[in-house]
Amino acid sequence: MIGQDEIEGAARRLAPHIRETPILTLEPGAMELPGRIVLKLELLQHAGSFKARGAFNRILSADVPAAGVIAASGGNHGIATALAARTLGHKAEIFVPEISAPVKVARLKALGARVHVTGRDYQASLEASEARAQDSGALVVHAYNQPEVLAGQGTAGREFERQAPGLDTLLVACGGGGLIGGIAAWFRSRVRVVGVEPERCPTLSRALAAGRPVDIEPGGLAADSLGARRAGEMAFEIAKAHVARVALVSDAAIRRAQLALWKTLRIAAEPGGAAALAALLSGAYVPAAKERVGVLVCGGNVDPASLNETPEEASP
Amino acid sequence: MIGQDEIEGAARRLAPHIRETPILTLEPGAMELPGRIVLKLELLQHAGSFKARGAFNRILSADVPAAGVIAASGGNHGIATALAARTLGHKAEIFVPEISAPVKVARLKALGARVHVTGRDYQASLEASEARAQDSGALVVHAYNQPEVLAGQGTAGREFERQAPGLDTLLVACGGGGLIGGIAAWFRSRVRVVGVEPERCPTLSRALAAGRPVDIEPGGLAADSLGARRAGEMAFEIAKAHVARVALVSDAAIRRAQLALWKTLRIAAEPGGAAALAALLSGAYVPAAKERVGVLVCGGNVDPASLNETPEEASP
Repeated sequence: MIGQDEIEGAARRLAPHIRETPILTLEPGAMELPGRIVLKLELLQHAGSFKARGAFNRILSADVPAAGVIAASGGNHGIATALAARTLGHKAEIFVPEISAPVKVARLKALGARVHVTGRDYQASLEASEARAQDSGALVVHAYNQPEVLAGQGTAGREFERQAPGLDTLLVACGGGGLIGGIAAWFRSRVRVVGVEPERCPTLSRALAAGRPVDIEPGGLAADSLGARRAGEMAFEIAKAHVARVALVSDAAIRRAQLALWKTLRIAAEPGGAAALAALLSGAYVPAAKERVGVLVCGGNVDPASLNETPEEASP
Repeated sequence: MIGQDEIEGAARRLAPHIRETPILTLEPGAMELPGRIVLKLELLQHAGSFKARGAFNRILSADVPAAGVIAASGGNHGIATALAARTLGHKAEIFVPEISAPVKVARLKALGARVHVTGRDYQASLEASEARAQDSGALVVHAYNQPEVLAGQGTAGREFERQAPGLDTLLVACGGGGLIGGIAAWFRSRVRVVGVEPERCPTLSRALAAGRPVDIEPGGLAADSLGARRAGEMAFEIAKAHVARVALVSDAAIRRAQLALWKTLRIAAEPGGAAALAALLSGAYVPAAKERVGVLVCGGNVDPASLNETPEEASP
């Protein structure tokens, strides 16, 4: 299991390449939320999500062959890997499923990656990328199940703690578990880390219930960022020890949180990036009276036009 | 002329009502800019722009009659005044010109203000609001030419200095001059304050050239936030003493900056909010090698769909 040493090492390695993303403390009563809520705007990270941390750390930790790097992704990890590869002077080949948001595929291509849109979900893209990696010999940059990736994502937790010391609880969206695994490995239960999953992508909650990662059928609004079919083994081991609980949120709650972030704060999050806040707004996670809660707003690779309410949403 | 005392007083008055908006330090080379650039994300302020500072300070400094408050605005100042009035329990009547962005008019109505869309530009709305104020007796909250408004906007400069001490230069968009006047009054030439205006709204640069506020014919992409017909007398006096220079930017440069903020940072600024950065990206302001430059990103009341590139923009 990775720990603080690996995350400190990642932070040193990442320093020239990663933005310190800002935090924003909400005033009591904002969005009708009680207490003191601190958002970390990790969607302002390079490539629009926390994924740049893990991708850079994995590539910087390895000897990269001439074939470059290869990754499978719902979109964000691929964009981050393509950016890291371009920055560090390597070729990148990225596999994304057919559900990947068009805005993400366009960004991948703009970053100069060789892009394959294949398979119905992340798992199918992963399998295609694994077959290709056997042939090409490229360095595999896994979306969540590699220690360097987990340690890279963990730096988001380290940074948040330095910016907002004294938080009681941290809400983190999870898919394959790379982000929450890295963050829980940093805090090791010093702070209550709560996972948030869409009801339609309950990867980690099902794994914790079963005592091991099990297959689910991911779907819904945030599937292209949180839609892993199965939790990573490494993240699962960390979560079992250091994730306090997992809250589930509906697609409607995610959409409401996405619109609230835009309308109240002019923050343009993608559905997966709004999921952690959705747990607060929907009551899936109810903080105690004086509980200081941090929320990671983790991704912003969104078509901005989708932030306009539909006529149905505007007049409920 | 207002000074640091008035701005300190405003900061105390505003503390319960205003967000400390985050800063973001760009990595060298971001958006192909040299040196160290620090953005202040004032578009994350309540009501989506710095205008909440001046509006709250004006209303909190006065005895508000039963008729409530009245304001004329290109949109943002009206939204801020409506929010402040609602928060503090007063009625609000807001006059906006026909060029005001539909998204701004919609936000005004959502805040419960009585809205009049009238006149071709801000000046015409102002005249209509003045006639109405004579009848109603409501408290006038001017968009820029009142000391309490200038002092309120000046708190953005005070806050920026605390967050990023040691800046050499600060780039600030200007229209009627409330923001740059308040900020220049705070710094009093301790920091080089540079105004940025659209070529089609050269209110302050023409005033400085003429030695007094003169009428211009505002137009172009940012007219609904930077399109005052004439600089405020109070802001002009401060600017004459403490604004180092005014840089002019084209509408095309503003649009490129708006798209760069979105694509590189997932920051959704309106055209006027992107104008200060446009001075750097277009070369209208060229910093020296080690100059530390702060940029105020001052407004985000934008239709998010407008952040998508048009087909012409996507393939130049």
